[in-house]
Formats: sequence, structure tokens, C-alpha cells
Amino acid sequence: MNNKSTLPAVLVNSYVSALLSVSEGVGLGATFLKPEIVTGVNATDSLAAAFIGIIGGEGHCHVALMADEPSFSAYVRAFTGGIIKPDPDDSMAMSVLGEMTNMISGRALILAQMPGLDITPPQLFSGTNVRLSPTVKAKVKSFTLPFTVESGKIYLVVSVY
Amino acid sequence: MNNKSTLPAVLVNSYVSALLSVSEGVGLGATFLKPEIVTGVNATDSLAAAFIGIIGGEGHCHVALMADEPSFSAYVRAFTGGIIKPDPDDSMAMSVLGEMTNMISGRALILAQMPGLDITPPQLFSGTNVRLSPTVKAKVKSFTLPFTVESGKIYLVVSVY
Repeated sequence: MNNKSTLPAVLVNSYVSALLSVSEGVGLGATFLKPEIVTGVNATDSLAAAFIGIIGGEGHCHVALMADEPSFSAYVRAFTGGIIKPDPDDSMAMSVLGEMTNMISGRALILAQMPGLDITPPQLFSGTNVRLSPTVKAKVKSFTLPFTVESGKIYLVVSVY
Repeated sequence: MNNKSTLPAVLVNSYVSALLSVSEGVGLGATFLKPEIVTGVNATDSLAAAFIGIIGGEGHCHVALMADEPSFSAYVRAFTGGIIKPDPDDSMAMSVLGEMTNMISGRALILAQMPGLDITPPQLFSGTNVRLSPTVKAKVKSFTLPFTVESGKIYLVVSVY
């Protein structure tokens, strides 16, 4: 288990690697937009969001994966071999985003050497211009990690309590 | 701790009582639409959603509080005495929904006699027509509990794993 003060940096790096390798695993080349990483929440214009909580150890974390229309389509196509239509009103299509968040989180927590944590099942939201609202409490550190995938954008928002 | 098979019914009843009493505490008369309770997820047209995970004991639970425009405005006004504008792009206004979800969950878990559970901090989403996507896994039981508040509607979606 890492020291709490280094936790955000370790988690952020692990999540970036995990998203890139899970994407590669389904044949999608994602690119991390390192210069555009921001503290706080800056993920707008999303069509679909998957959200999980990580509990245990010394703190809680939240991770949200937020996809715009082109990236949502790209991942649904890639994960299902084109069998499922990338419709955010279809719970099967939405579950791709949830499964992806599970896979990325599992891999990230291994990379971050954080065993013994419990992950809540992903919760899935869709809508027009879905935004994640930053938590106003001072002790919460959030990081928004932007990626491009095909013509779309996907964001990981990691919040550490 | 309740037996797992009775858990959904106990939780649903506790959450209904908790929402009603938290609303009453800020001077809002909410009405539970008992005939419209459904298994599964049926909460559409929401403007704002607060989401928490409950971990511990024998299973995970998720609870989402989803508000449409009139109910969001009513709660933000009631909780802040009208000081904060009910704008879903304002994180202070959104945090009202989060705080409300915390209060309702805390009260519901006491009523359900489920001590020792851990609650993740609320995560807050906003957008146009925000929908919660049902989980496709067979072992998940979800219940949508609709309420009217002033001219609006607010939903509690309780999912038990």
C-alpha cells in the first residue's frame, strides 16, 4: 500500500496505463493527452458515463469514465465486434462502458500495487451533455485525464478522498 | 443485519421513510407514488443525479437520487434558504443533492438496522435528460421509487447486489 500523499500520482499513472492497455486489447489506439490533464473535473459533452467507487485501505476513490458519441461508438463496436449498436438507451451497449471501467480499474489497482480494495459494480448514466460535478469539499483531489480515441474523446476522472 | 432475501424490501421501505422525513425537515412535502414503484430502472428526464455506493455486510448496494428541474429547484431552495441559485452547473447547488443523498442514506441505514456499512461520498452528475442505465446482470435487483415534490418529480433508484 502506498503512502497516502503519493496515492493520487500513483493512481493517475496506473489508470492512464490501464486505459491504454485495455483499449489496445480490443484493437483501439487511444492517445493520452498529457498536456491537457487537469486537477479538478473538466469532462463535458459526454453521452455516457460509468462510475465506480473504490473502498478500503486508507481512503475512498471514485472513478468515472466519460465518453462522447464517437468514442462511445468506437468502444461498443470494438468490444462487441460490431454486434451491438452503440445506442446509449440500450443497456447492453451501456454495459460495455461498465465492463471497460471494471477492466481498467482492476488493471490500475494491480499496477498501483493496491491489493485488498473493494470495487463497487459500475453504475451507468446516459444523457445529453452529461457533466460530472466537482465535489466542493476541500479534502477531495480530482484529476481529469483526457484521451482521444478515433475522432472522439474519453475522460477518466479520478477522485481521491 | 437482515437476512439477504429480505434486504431489498427492508431497504426500499427505509429509503422511502428517509426521503420523506429529510424532505419534511427542510419544509418540503414530498409524496411517495406507491402505485408507481417499479422493479428495474425507470427514472427519466432528470436534470441532476447523485449517486452513492454502500459497501459491507453481505452485499453491495447502489442508490441514485435523480431529480427533474422543478424538484431540483425546490430542494436547492429549501436546503439553502434560497441563497443558492438552483443551477446544475453550479457545484454548490449540485452539492445540495449530494448532501441530501448522504442524509437520506444515513437515516435509511439506521431505519433498516444495518450498522457497520460504509458509504462512498456522493458523486454528482448533471445533464439533459440524464438516465440511469439498468445493470444487465441477473443477480442485481433494482427498484425505482418515485416521489412528487411541488410540481416536480424525484426518484430514488435502489440497486441491491
